[in-house]
Order: sequence, then C-alpha cells, then structure tokens
Amino acid sequence: MKALVYHGPGKYGWEEKPRPSIQEPTDAIVRITHTTICGTDLHILKGDVPAVRPGRLLGHEGVGVIEEVGEEVEAFKPGERVLISCITSCGRCDFCRKNMYAHCRNGGWILGHLIDGTQAEFVRIPQADNSLYKLPPGLDEAVAVMLSDILPTGHEIGVRNGEVKLGDTLAIVGAGPIGLACLLTAHFYSPAEIIMVDIDENRLEVARNLGATQVVREDPVRRVLELTENEGVDVAIEAVGLPETFDICQSIVKPGGHIANVGVHGKPVEFHIEALWIKNITLRTGLVNTDTIPLLLKTLKAGRLDPGRLVTHSLKLDEIERAYAVFGNAEREKAIKMLLVAAH
Amino acid sequence: MKALVYHGPGKYGWEEKPRPSIQEPTDAIVRITHTTICGTDLHILKGDVPAVRPGRLLGHEGVGVIEEVGEEVEAFKPGERVLISCITSCGRCDFCRKNMYAHCRNGGWILGHLIDGTQAEFVRIPQADNSLYKLPPGLDEAVAVMLSDILPTGHEIGVRNGEVKLGDTLAIVGAGPIGLACLLTAHFYSPAEIIMVDIDENRLEVARNLGATQVVREDPVRRVLELTENEGVDVAIEAVGLPETFDICQSIVKPGGHIANVGVHGKPVEFHIEALWIKNITLRTGLVNTDTIPLLLKTLKAGRLDPGRLVTHSLKLDEIERAYAVFGNAEREKAIKMLLVAAH
Amino acid sequence: MKALVYHGPGKYGWEEKPRPSIQEPTDAIVRITHTTICGTDLHILKGDVPAVRPGRLLGHEGVGVIEEVGEEVEAFKPGERVLISCITSCGRCDFCRKNMYAHCRNGGWILGHLIDGTQAEFVRIPQADNSLYKLPPGLDEAVAVMLSDILPTGHEIGVRNGEVKLGDTLAIVGAGPIGLACLLTAHFYSPAEIIMVDIDENRLEVARNLGATQVVREDPVRRVLELTENEGVDVAIEAVGLPETFDICQSIVKPGGHIANVGVHGKPVEFHIEALWIKNITLRTGLVNTDTIPLLLKTLKAGRLDPGRLVTHSLKLDEIERAYAVFGNAEREKAIKMLLVAAH
Amino acid sequence: MKALVYHGPGKYGWEEKPRPSIQEPTDAIVRITHTTICGTDLHILKGDVPAVRPGRLLGHEGVGVIEEVGEEVEAFKPGERVLISCITSCGRCDFCRKNMYAHCRNGGWILGHLIDGTQAEFVRIPQADNSLYKLPPGLDEAVAVMLSDILPTGHEIGVRNGEVKLGDTLAIVGAGPIGLACLLTAHFYSPAEIIMVDIDENRLEVARNLGATQVVREDPVRRVLELTENEGVDVAIEAVGLPETFDICQSIVKPGGHIANVGVHGKPVEFHIEALWIKNITLRTGLVNTDTIPLLLKTLKAGRLDPGRLVTHSLKLDEIERAYAVFGNAEREKAIKMLLVAAH
Repeated sequence: MKALVYHGPGKYGWEEKPRPSIQEPTDAIVRITHTTICGTDLHILKGDVPAVRPGRLLGHEGVGVIEEVGEEVEAFKPGERVLISCITSCGRCDFCRKNMYAHCRNGGWILGHLIDGTQAEFVRIPQADNSLYKLPPGLDEAVAVMLSDILPTGHEIGVRNGEVKLGDTLAIVGAGPIGLACLLTAHFYSPAEIIMVDIDENRLEVARNLGATQVVREDPVRRVLELTENEGVDVAIEAVGLPETFDICQSIVKPGGHIANVGVHGKPVEFHIEALWIKNITLRTGLVNTDTIPLLLKTLKAGRLDPGRLVTHSLKLDEIERAYAVFGNAEREKAIKMLLVAAH
Repeated sequence: MKALVYHGPGKYGWEEKPRPSIQEPTDAIVRITHTTICGTDLHILKGDVPAVRPGRLLGHEGVGVIEEVGEEVEAFKPGERVLISCITSCGRCDFCRKNMYAHCRNGGWILGHLIDGTQAEFVRIPQADNSLYKLPPGLDEAVAVMLSDILPTGHEIGVRNGEVKLGDTLAIVGAGPIGLACLLTAHFYSPAEIIMVDIDENRLEVARNLGATQVVREDPVRRVLELTENEGVDVAIEAVGLPETFDICQSIVKPGGHIANVGVHGKPVEFHIEALWIKNITLRTGLVNTDTIPLLLKTLKAGRLDPGRLVTHSLKLDEIERAYAVFGNAEREKAIKMLLVAAH
Repeated sequence: MKALVYHGPGKYGWEEKPRPSIQEPTDAIVRITHTTICGTDLHILKGDVPAVRPGRLLGHEGVGVIEEVGEEVEAFKPGERVLISCITSCGRCDFCRKNMYAHCRNGGWILGHLIDGTQAEFVRIPQADNSLYKLPPGLDEAVAVMLSDILPTGHEIGVRNGEVKLGDTLAIVGAGPIGLACLLTAHFYSPAEIIMVDIDENRLEVARNLGATQVVREDPVRRVLELTENEGVDVAIEAVGLPETFDICQSIVKPGGHIANVGVHGKPVEFHIEALWIKNITLRTGLVNTDTIPLLLKTLKAGRLDPGRLVTHSLKLDEIERAYAVFGNAEREKAIKMLLVAAH
Repeated sequence: MKALVYHGPGKYGWEEKPRPSIQEPTDAIVRITHTTICGTDLHILKGDVPAVRPGRLLGHEGVGVIEEVGEEVEAFKPGERVLISCITSCGRCDFCRKNMYAHCRNGGWILGHLIDGTQAEFVRIPQADNSLYKLPPGLDEAVAVMLSDILPTGHEIGVRNGEVKLGDTLAIVGAGPIGLACLLTAHFYSPAEIIMVDIDENRLEVARNLGATQVVREDPVRRVLELTENEGVDVAIEAVGLPETFDICQSIVKPGGHIANVGVHGKPVEFHIEALWIKNITLRTGLVNTDTIPLLLKTLKAGRLDPGRLVTHSLKLDEIERAYAVFGNAEREKAIKMLLVAAH
C-alpha cells in the first residue's frame, strides 16, 4: 500500500509500504477513505516530537471501512464504515473507567506517534472496540473525519474545560483550526458573546462567518477589556501554545473566570499568581479524551453541527505531499483543514 | 477604647483610640470578645500590603456581641452573639448573588485592610446583615473565632477548590495554620490518604494528631511519588505561597488531578505547561468567600469539627503585643493559632 | 388608577383603585408599561387558589418605569426601566443565599396572590433591590415582559431541572405557553432531538416553527418509543399538570433519564415506582426562582433568544377584560401569550 | 460441587450440582470463599421475582479465588483473590461508558437471577474483566464481601443519589441491612445530623452505635419535623420499599431537598405532587451500578470504613440452609448480615 512516511526532521514521502495486519485479537484493519493533517503533524515534521522515530507512518485522524477484525473484536464487522478516534483506549483500565481515555494505560495518543498512523491506504487500529465509532448511515465521511480529533479537542479541552455556559462572554485566543473548532462547539452552550483574537485577518473573517460576535486583531488585552467594560471575560481559551498568548488569557479573565489551555506548549510560561491568587480563577489543561465523539456524532446527524465549514482544501489521498506543502503555508494559502480523499 | 494600631512597617502598638460609631444605616458595632492573628497580619507588618495605611487598626477575625445597629439592619439586635466574617458583602451585587463574596462590589476583604479591624475592643462592621453570623447557643466563642477566616479558607480555597473526594490521595504542602485548616476540613470529604509536607517536625507532629496518614519532611517530590507508587496525588494543596512549594505541587499531581492554591504569593511562578498541557489538570486560586460559614457552624454545633485544636496559645486581648511577638516566631514558639480573649 | 380586580370565582373587572404607595423603606412603586396574563391567573379566576382573596389586584408579570423608591432601595432610581420578577426575594435569608428565591422567607410568589399585582397602572414591589432587574438600553419592553415568569419557568423548572444537555433526546409534553417556553430555552443546551407532544394541531405547528424536530398528536407513548427506537427519551418535561400527562412522562423516560415537572397539579399522581425503582431516573419539581433572569437578559440582548414569538395577541392595557376572555378560549383563539400595553 | 438451588416458591436446598465451566472467552470461574444472603434472595424465595426459574443457583454477592479464566480475560489470573460485583458489565456498551453498569446491554443484575449465582462452591462470572475486582493484599475477605452489593447500593442509590453533603440533616427510613449501609456510607459526606427511622428497637440501637444522631420509632413524620424545627430534612432515604415509608419521605423533605429511593417496591405509590410541585424537590430511583466499588475498596484499605459491623451471624457455607432460616426471621433473630464462609 501507499503511506506517508516520516524520515526525520523535514523529510517525508508518500511511499510503498507493507499493508498492516492483525497483531492482537483486539485489532482491526481499516481501509482509509478520508484523512486530514493536524497541526501536530507539522510539529512532528519539525522534529519537535522526538518520540516519533524515522520510518513511522504519520496521521491520527481518519474515516474508513473495516477490512478485517481480530477474533476478540465484538462491535465491528468487515464492510462497516467507521470513524477513527485519535485516541486509542482499552476501556478497562482505571483511567478509561473515568472516561479519561487520553491516559489509557494501554493506549492514549499512539496513532502516527508510537505506532503507524492513518495517512495511509490502510491502518491497524488496536483496541478496536473502544477506539472506533460506527458512522450512522447518511453521514458524510468528508465531514465526519473532523470528529477524529479537532472537533472533540475544541469541544472537550476548550469549551467543556472552560465551562462555557449560557450568557457567558468567551474569548478564544487563536483562530487557527483548533480555535475555530472551539468556536463551532462553543455555540452548543449559548454564550452571549464570543470574541475571537488573532493576527490573521482572513482567519478572523472565517471566525465572523462561524458566529464570532467580535473579532480583535491588535492590542488584544486593551481591546478585550474595552469590549467587556473592564470586567474581563468569563472564559478565555488559549488556542495557540505560546507564552504571549497564554499571557493574554491571564490578563483578560475576570474574577471567578476560567482559562482553558488547548495550545501545545514547548516551554514553561510565567503564571501571574501574584495577581491571580486573589481572583478565584480556574485553569485547565488537557489532551483530548474523545469521550464526546458519540455526542458529536448525534449532533452531526441531527444537523446541528457543520464542521465541514473548516475544510478549505480537498485533495486526493495520493496528493498528500502537496497537501503538506499547502498546510505548511497555512496563512498564505488561507488553509484551515486539508481534506484527503482516497480513490475508490 | 484600646486597639492594635499599625504605624508603618514593623511598628505597632496597643493604644487608646475613639470607639467606632454607626456611619451607614447598614452598619453594626460589635464589642469584640475573641479575636486572633492571621499570617496576613504579619505580612502587613512587614509592609507587604501597601494598601494598609499607617493608623489603621488591624485584624479581620473575631467573635463578639452586637452593641448597636444601624436602622436598616434587620437580622441582628444588640446583645446577640455574632461571628464576624473576614469578608464584607452586600448580598445584592452580581458577585454576591453568585456567592462570590470575596469579590463583592461593595465589600470584599476590607476589615483591618481598607477600614479598621477587629483587634480592638469594638469594631464597626459594614453590610452587617450579610457579614455577620449569629452564634448558635452553646457554641464556644473561643472555638467559633476560627470560623472567621482560617477554617473557611482551608475549606473553600484548599479542599473544595481541590475537589477532594471519597477515596482520594491528597497532599497538603505546608503544615502552618492554613495547611492544618485544610487538613481539618479535608476529613469532611473522606479522602483515603492525606500526606502532609513541611520542613518543621513539630507541625508535622500536629498534623499526624489531626489525622494526616503520612508526613513528609525531606525530598518531598521523590517521597510523595514513592508513597503513591509513582502515580502522584489526586489533589495537591499549596499552603505556603512560594515558587518552591508551588513547584512541588506541579510535580506530584497525577493526570486528571487538581492543584488548589491557598498560599499568598508575592511574585509570579513558573508554570510547567510544557509538561502539564497533556495531563488534564485543574488549577484553582482564590480568596475565601466565607459562603460556607453557615455549614461550618452547623458542623461545629453537631460536634463534627474541632478547630479549637489549632489554638496553641491563649492570651488576654490587652496582651496582643506579646501575642504578635510569639506569633512572629511561630516555629520556635510552636505557635499555630493565637487566641485573644477580652476581659468582661 | 385602573387595575384588574378579582371579585371571587369567575368575577373580575378593570376598575378604579387607589394608587399604591411606599409602605416599607425597601419598596419601589413601578408604573406598568407592559404586562401579560399567566395560566395561573385563569386558575385563580376559577377559584383554584383560595389564598387569593376577593379585592386582590391580579398579575405577577410586568415591565415598567420606576416611579418612586423607599429610602433603603439602593439599586434603582425613578425613571429607570425595570423588569419585574414574579418572585419577590429579600436576598438575605437562608433560601435566598442558595438562590432559592421561590422559598424566600420574606417573599416568594406573592404578587397578584398575597399582595396586589401587576395588571394595574402602578404596582408596589417589596424588596425592590432583589426583585427588580434593570432593562438594558435598547431592549424591547414588549419582549422583555416574557422574562418575568414564563421564560425563567420554562428554563429553570423544565430545561435546567431536566438537565437537558448536548445530544439529548427531549420530549416536552404540552405545547401551551409554558411548554413552548421550555422549547425556546431548551435550544440553549443543544439537544439533538426535541419531540413536542400535544393534542392541539395549531400549537404543534407553532412548536415546529420554534424548532421542535418531531411533533406527536396521538398515542404519545407508543409514538415516542417508536421515534426513539424503543429507548425512550433522556428528558421528559411535564408541562400540563394532569395525571395523564405525568403518566406519559413516566412511560417514555429511558434508564438514567430525567423527568422535570413544570405543570401545576391539583391532585396526587400515581408514581410507578414498581417499574421505575430499577431505572435510575431523576424526577424534579419546582416553582421558578427567577435566578436566571440576568442570564436571560444577557442572552436576549445578544440576540440569541426571541420570546416575542410567543406573543399571539397584543392589546391595550385597558382592554385587559377582553384579553382575559380571549385567553380563556386559548385553543379556539389560537392564543399563546397576550401582551397588554399601557397607553403613554 | 455443592450449591443452593431454588426449586420454586418456598423450596430450596444445598445440593450437589455440576461445577461451572468457561462458556465464553471473557468468563472466569471463581472458587467462593465468602458469600452472604441479600433481602432480594428472600423475595426470590417468596416467588416475587418470576424471572428466577426453578433449578437456578441463587446468590449475587461473594469473594473468592480465581480458578480459571477464558482466553480473552486480561485482568485476572488463577490464584488471585477477587471481589464479585453483583452487577455484570461488559464495559463497552453505551450504558457502561456512562458508568451505568446496572443497565449494561450485555449484563446488569444477572447473577443468581438469570444465570447461576454465588451461593455455591464455584461460580462462573461472565465479562470477568469488568465484573470482578482484585482484593488488595491484607484486606479481610469476610469484610470485603459486604462490597459486592449492600455497601455500594447504600452508597450509590441512597447517599449519592440523595446528594448528602456537608452539614445536611439526613433521615434514613428503615434500619435494615440496606438502611444501615446508607448510614455507614453517609458518614463519608459529613452530614450534621442523621435521623434513623424504624419500628424495631434493636435495629435502632445498632444505628445509634453506627453513628445515627437521632432515632425515631413512633409517629415518624411528627417526630422528624419536631427534631428539625418544622423545617424538614435535606435528604430522606427510603430504605424499606412500602407505600407507607415512601409517604414518610414525602412528608419530611424540605423545600429544595432530595428523596432517594433504595427500597424495592412491588406496587405504585401515591406521589403528592399537588403539594410537592412547588417545593423544588428531587426524587431519584435506582439499581446499583457498583461503579464505586474501587473507591470503597480504597476506603476500606485505608481503614476508613468498617462494614464488618453489619455482620451479626457467621456460619459455614454448608450451613447456608440454616442461615436462610435465621435471616428469614431477621427481627426475632436480630440478624442483619449473615456471613457464609467456605471450608478451605
């Protein structure tokens, strides 16, 4: 089969590789029909994630068709359409029983990281019963693939961790794919105001179209305070991963408010506890558990969520090298999510 | 009347001052029968709290008897015994309606800070209806005074903010008065293990007597991980207020765990988001709201709480200068809480 | 002034009465600009609420302008536009501190019940600081009056008590004004499906227009089970107040589901605990607290709620006798909410 | 092997039966060391549970040693000591993922009900990975067996469903085994008062010893209201299963309070919604999920729970017929829990 192979920092190729086969009785083999590229994949290519070794097949998002299942797999049969969770979970360990699949003792984020991933014609999915979700009939696979990672991450780590609720004023710092996924799923909880902060005018325009009530491009702390009559926001979501954007969140959260960190950070940040100790704030961090995938699927099926609006580019799966190039210049290319579709 | 007057960093005296009188129709005048000294009072004496101006009467904890009430006070009459909350609250503003009295727009922490306090024979309490609590008959005033600040702070900002729950492993970093108040009130929620961390052997001995299941004096991170089979703790309470002790908390919290900051910090801390972003942790800060005073009074009356065990020294109110001297050498004097009793 | 006077079962009139005046320093006098008629008012007219004595001025909903305030009122000044809560609350008692205003020891539902109400040119509002809400500039009074009672009741007692949440299947039994208020506010929490049950085709049509995803007119239990593949619903809201409609809710709720009772019941119901004891269900009852009025006002101001869609008839305040006649034949007249507007 | 065989209403015997064997790869065979008799077993013997067919081996509580495991069992090995949950759960279905194991689509309460149970020398446990719990070293098996059903039921369906919390006034109606299990586990949440209601003086005496602060034997509604200054209780737990005791709960719950039904009811009850509709109460029903077994094991291991105090009689496993006779006359025999110990 063909697959996207990582060859160390900066080097990758769409190459011939052996088709994966069942290794454990709980495995399934999935033929990929749709996949996408995550910001994390770019980090891997830069060499920022040393646990990813050369030779690894990348990708942790995907939709496909069950090709084969191990003998202990009970929930799936060949031919069924499935959504692949970016998180592998056994369903039995103490963390899984608390729905903290991100910390599964027999899984977690391993696809395209510690084992071969989904940017390939076929992928092996361990712990298949707990790590795959049946696609309801009629659901568009090109849209459903957004539920592998980005939508649950925005929803769980941004919106739910931030405890966004009815009537809130919410600020999302960063209008990239993940910030926009926060925006899309924040609507579920009916905040009164959603202020989107970014430096890219195009992304702010997209945010406006997706329901942001205010956008801020310059001097964000001053501007957000102005918009909130100096009260600050109920919830600030950090969706970038830099000390500067984390700082903005610290400066705009009101007493009793929440900061939800979604950005992936490479170094420590300065936490202004000398000012915040008295402000009764809550700060949460997290890797997605994807325990809300079933809810998101129901919502998608009910026509109450349209993550397809995040897709700016659609290419064939074997054009994935070009897709990486475009996504690597996301700002210039006005790219948000790259959709990759396998030929049938 | 006599009162403890602050005269700028390092200078204070027990001096004659005019008795306070009703200024607003919502005020009450309380004759103090019992008060105590808070660690914050020592910070003020060091000059760390510049908002406290020379001439200010200190103290924000106390029990006493209503002497006089303004004409709009409905809940209290002269002669009634009352507990004074360290937090003044109007009960009407948006924060008060959410029980966030610490952020009351017409109050908050003002006693012994922005207005004259409770280390005096008499004190004026603004917003009396919402800032005083009737003492149930039979309750010991010398014990009840622990409910003005330290018990609610330990309970609300340490234990409740840390979401301590049945079966948890809890670490409290700092076994001073506030850490011990966390310990006393943590029992309400039945954690399985309570690990107390401090460098003072005497305080750890007190902690053991108050129900700590483990105490740690040296090499705290390594030792706590050892005690938890390298899993870390469900909840870490920071009860000191230094970057070093905050760091311990960051290093021992397990995935999905909680850090509750109770310590008063004078400078920023380094937050290890590069490691914690993936650990799904919750960090909370806060100034006490004292909204749990009614619960704590019920619990005290039911005989299920014994905060009197925190009192190591009992003196007469007019010996308060000596009490400050002892409390200023708390470690050497083995002092935890200083009780000051007015002569009748 | 003119007011709607109750003269015992079936008898009422729009008559000249003395203008109310300040009785307590916490009172305010409000000049009514908009009011409406509640289903409860019809119950009173039938004699079902014996606590309402002849001579009482009816009405507990209204918007108006502050005419005069008592000397202890701090939050309002003459000339300000206010929304009147149907619930009077002191803000100080134990229930108020828990935001259970319905059970305020110095208030609760008293307007148009135990004291004179809002279907009048002027009304006296006790405990004004806690029982009135400032109308933000630009808000339409004709719409805001829906926030006195019906919207908070649907929201708090139907939707919040039912714990409607993302992806849920919700059934609302009864598509009268209160059932439709449940429907309007259920959208805040993004259920996947909302099934509306009623016997009135017109009301079901209105429900469809307000976002019901399914409507059921006949054989409701069988039909709802069919629509849910025999699983039942996550939440069933009883919005009628009869044993038969309560029974429907018991029969359609799934294991782990919620029943929220909003209907006003005159007699006991049979609770099928012999079947439900094993189903892990939660049943809640309640009188509205109106603690969510501030949230609803923010949401209204943000353009995310349109309760004006419930208004089917708009009359002048002095046409209120005719409004009662129309509302008394709600089904035939296709009446949902009657708006009454004072002449300026 | 020997086992307790049900032969239809009133008939049972300790008889020779074939040893169970692995039927599914997810099964385990457990050699029973300790078991007990549940009130439900008496209901079965009376013929109240028609799903139990003659020939069935009874019992759903037990501790034992793994004898053999199917090839898909990953968490257990022969020789390990295990606690058997009364609830079988697959861990994969939608209900299991919400920790609602009682409603597992591939399990639920089946032991000693739909399949052979634990009152036998050996038992087959389906879905072993999710339905068994490892016993920590040092834990007394005679005590741990109380965690199969009665302690989790009291804890989850009584105490947690009743939302018992710090400072509450709690009434438990019924001081039989399950009421006393509610009492033991209520202490975890530190209510201020626990009022125990029963007609059996001996059981009330036991309740007093286990920490009830008040006991009530006669005229319970009047007496509980008296004890609560006519306020009623925050939480009422129904632990009997009769209309009369359900009625007591309805009459003593205060506004905003909770009723948790633990009793097994054979017929409908009258729900006084005409009085309760306005009282903002919450009523919950439920079959135990046993999702708190891990917490209870930790608490037991930490020495913070002593369910052994419920055991009034200890017999050998082959004396189980006599144990049934004693338990059938529980009041006269002063029996609470019967412990049955297998010979080694």
